Amino acid sequence: MTSSDLQEQLNLRAVTLLQEDADKIQKLIEVQMENLATRYCPLYEEVLDTQMYGFSREVDFAVRAGLVPEVSGKLILSELERNLAVLYDALNKKAEEREML
Amino acid sequence: MTSSDLQEQLNLRAVTLLQEDADKIQKLIEVQMENLATRYCPLYEEVLDTQMYGFSREVDFAVRAGLVPEVSGKLILSELERNLAVLYDALNKKAEEREML
Repeated sequence: MTSSDLQEQLNLRAVTLLQEDADKIQKLIEVQMENLATRYCPLYEEVLDTQMYGFSREVDFAVRAGLVPEVSGKLILSELERNLAVLYDALNKKAEEREML
Repeated sequence: MTSSDLQEQLNLRAVTLLQEDADKIQKLIEVQMENLATRYCPLYEEVLDTQMYGFSREVDFAVRAGLVPEVSGKLILSELERNLAVLYDALNKKAEEREML
């Protein structure tokens, strides 16, 4: 195997791992979105924040270790953050609705 | 550069990065140990826990990405955890002393 083959293989593995971890967080977001109306659990937000923090550290490490281009790392993170923001908006609206009752 | 040179270089970089991050947490632990008697800040524990969590995610990623042997990752983490346990022991003793006053 040449060194560029190896680099490519390591980069691909790193991106695949990050994408898998991002998918797990995305799944958590989706579950919470589905449960908005029925079983709201306040701890969920804390769990999601913690997961996001851990994931951002992973991405940061992958970039610094030379496995993932900085722009790709930012892209993966910002997509998750956008989805998380949608969830938090929906949660806030639900909370306002409850207050108005 | 051969592929084994590249692998070695990437592994070395990964270990160096992890060691730098471990040193930062170690520094936080030492600062808190020095301040035990004078300026105790309860938020410090939370900051340390968060940092430790983020760091454990970095180490885990480095292992999964094939940059660091699992045993090395565990070693770096367990050393930090041991130092953290010493700090928490000292904090608990201080708290007991305060209660007895």
